[in-house]
Amino acid sequence: MAEENTIFIGKKGTMAYVLAVVTQVNSGAKEVTIKARGKAISRAVDVSEIVKNKFLKDMKISGIGTSTEELSTEEGGTIKVSSIEITMKK
Amino acid sequence: MAEENTIFIGKKGTMAYVLAVVTQVNSGAKEVTIKARGKAISRAVDVSEIVKNKFLKDMKISGIGTSTEELSTEEGGTIKVSSIEITMKK
Repeated sequence: MAEENTIFIGKKGTMAYVLAVVTQVNSGAKEVTIKARGKAISRAVDVSEIVKNKFLKDMKISGIGTSTEELSTEEGGTIKVSSIEITMKK
Repeated sequence: MAEENTIFIGKKGTMAYVLAVVTQVNSGAKEVTIKARGKAISRAVDVSEIVKNKFLKDMKISGIGTSTEELSTEEGGTIKVSSIEITMKK
């Protein structure tokens, strides 16, 4: 899938990401992937639920995958962080 | 699925729930469902990732579903909360 249809969930408010998804779809994307790591995972689920229940009722969640990513720390070690990928389709 | 194979993720540490899943499986459950709401959703993903990567390498995530639940507040109103359900199987 094209990287430009991916929304990375960070520290902004939930509605900022809802708006990002809606904007992508309104500019022609048939499929959008929402990605998040660590504590932002809950927000990713909120975003996909709000998008499909409130804003784009013709979109469905077509797949949800989770994985574990290894991130490097500033001290030179690595930590493991869970991640989620939610794919939404028309 | 039998309700006794469901683990509800609350405010305890992640490893408490990992242990709960491992215990269920070791006492014969072939399938376990991990449920969480709101901010605990991230922890639910951590639990399933840790279980399959570290403790029960023969288990796979067989399905992940999300939904929105309405909860009653003490003031008599309702709030919407996202929830997740992760099913793991041997």
